Amino acid sequence: MRGRRCVVTGGFGFIGANIVHRLIGLGSTVKIVDALVPSHGGNVRNVEGLDVEHHVARIGDESVADVIADADVIFNLAGQVSHTASMADPVFDLEINAVDHSRFLEMVRRVNPGVRIVHASTRQVYGRVATLPAHELTAANPVDVNGVAKLAGEQLHMVYAHAHGIASTSLRLSNVYGPRQRLTSNELGFLPVFIRRALLGQTIEIFGDGSQQRDCLHVDDVVDALLAATADAAVGRIYNVGNRHAHSLAEIATLLVTAVDRDVPVEYVGWPDDHHRIDIGSFTTDSSRIANDLGWRSSIDIDVGLKQTIAFYEENPWYLSST
Amino acid sequence: MRGRRCVVTGGFGFIGANIVHRLIGLGSTVKIVDALVPSHGGNVRNVEGLDVEHHVARIGDESVADVIADADVIFNLAGQVSHTASMADPVFDLEINAVDHSRFLEMVRRVNPGVRIVHASTRQVYGRVATLPAHELTAANPVDVNGVAKLAGEQLHMVYAHAHGIASTSLRLSNVYGPRQRLTSNELGFLPVFIRRALLGQTIEIFGDGSQQRDCLHVDDVVDALLAATADAAVGRIYNVGNRHAHSLAEIATLLVTAVDRDVPVEYVGWPDDHHRIDIGSFTTDSSRIANDLGWRSSIDIDVGLKQTIAFYEENPWYLSST
Repeated sequence: MRGRRCVVTGGFGFIGANIVHRLIGLGSTVKIVDALVPSHGGNVRNVEGLDVEHHVARIGDESVADVIADADVIFNLAGQVSHTASMADPVFDLEINAVDHSRFLEMVRRVNPGVRIVHASTRQVYGRVATLPAHELTAANPVDVNGVAKLAGEQLHMVYAHAHGIASTSLRLSNVYGPRQRLTSNELGFLPVFIRRALLGQTIEIFGDGSQQRDCLHVDDVVDALLAATADAAVGRIYNVGNRHAHSLAEIATLLVTAVDRDVPVEYVGWPDDHHRIDIGSFTTDSSRIANDLGWRSSIDIDVGLKQTIAFYEENPWYLSST
Repeated sequence: MRGRRCVVTGGFGFIGANIVHRLIGLGSTVKIVDALVPSHGGNVRNVEGLDVEHHVARIGDESVADVIADADVIFNLAGQVSHTASMADPVFDLEINAVDHSRFLEMVRRVNPGVRIVHASTRQVYGRVATLPAHELTAANPVDVNGVAKLAGEQLHMVYAHAHGIASTSLRLSNVYGPRQRLTSNELGFLPVFIRRALLGQTIEIFGDGSQQRDCLHVDDVVDALLAATADAAVGRIYNVGNRHAHSLAEIATLLVTAVDRDVPVEYVGWPDDHHRIDIGSFTTDSSRIANDLGWRSSIDIDVGLKQTIAFYEENPWYLSST
């Protein structure tokens, strides 16, 4: 990636900031486009000290055309990730995760049709599927508006690849954790909540009996996958990106308590109604397509990844109070 | 349906007008909501002479709340069907086929959460699939923005069914033909174009070699399916609705020439670029789920259906000039 001009949309966010750090380290020039929607995960401090140009805009805004016009690669990570927020304001989620991407892709066609795009989708598009582990030919059955909208955003990238020759790839990321995640929100998945409470010594609450399986992916593995997905073989393809090993929520909580090395109570509580309605039970991913096509495999086991993550936040305690 | 209060969105359109005619015949009271978007298929003449109340509005408009507040059943058929139009203005297609439905479903939650909804989706959501015939567990792979947006609209109905208890069903309709279709547009599928040209004695042009299979469904079969889908067993379910018999485009053209009973040349021509990019080759549907659950099966073979359709347009020649 040395010398390549990259744009990272959602670049102030969790995964975005991690790819920005990696790209700068590899010698790319980087521009960030981020709308800094208050409830989303973006924070300018995530890229503090890095030599990057940034533009506060939604990706569908006309001003973005100038930013992307000379890019070699776009990592298109802008989006809303909250399942519960998508149910509270479905129109906004559809606008952010689908319609804005349509505007963005039209802009790409107009000003930079030769650019390489890697889009971040999510395992959330699968919802409650007929068989596990889910692979790319498993029919999606999203259970919340976020899953519907993200699926549309991902499929738009595929339509533009196949009908308009825009070199796009979309990655369905499983539950991601690691440095630079917003910890103070309860709306961005269970992992940042568990991590925050472990760091603060507060009781970790598990909804239900804790037997639900999840595959959790360290953000460094995700960054590797995003880079691997710039290969020619990935154009016009969708890939699952998950950990080879799944764990129950109870196991994940226990590993976290071990990682923080202090007493943290774990309690099993009833489901809040707004979560229960959109829960999917256990979920595991078959990521063999990306392994076969691009050679990517998850490399960071959850025990190691959680310890590294805890160490990062202990060195950067502002994440525990930043909103 | 006698005495039941029905709302038909898109009720001035092709399928909408046909269900309106049937409902009036069955003794329902009917209100129509239709935006009369100029390029779409709606025409007030389609329901001329019927005792129906109508509202010219997009389904997401706040004024629609009053219209649906006391409905027993909503047939939610509003939408854009043109594949090529969806590629020319993708944002509009997403707004009409997905975001408006989100606004609409939020309104339903607020003013009439006990209503029964049957939504019209399309076989277009499948796009280019891995195996044929497509059944409901075949992963969708839409090839145009219309397929993406209609899939999102359909999935929104399922999310509202499962998360909010709104009694919705969505039907993936195959290629529909019959009375009250707008014949003068080239953007609403191949069937109205073929039918118009046959009626006018103009050359029927087939893109490619004519071997592509389609299952064509008479609109009376579709109306039967829409009514069958109001059964309790259909709540929260998606169903394929296709003809048991598929035919090649060449066969369909030949059957049409027979139906009009005059000389109509059939020519095989090259693909226009904007169609070729989003063509899916052959497509056939497995509709066994709706047969098993609801007892619906297609009942009108294409030769009979085309003859009846031609007779209708010969008696109502204004369809050949109406825009």
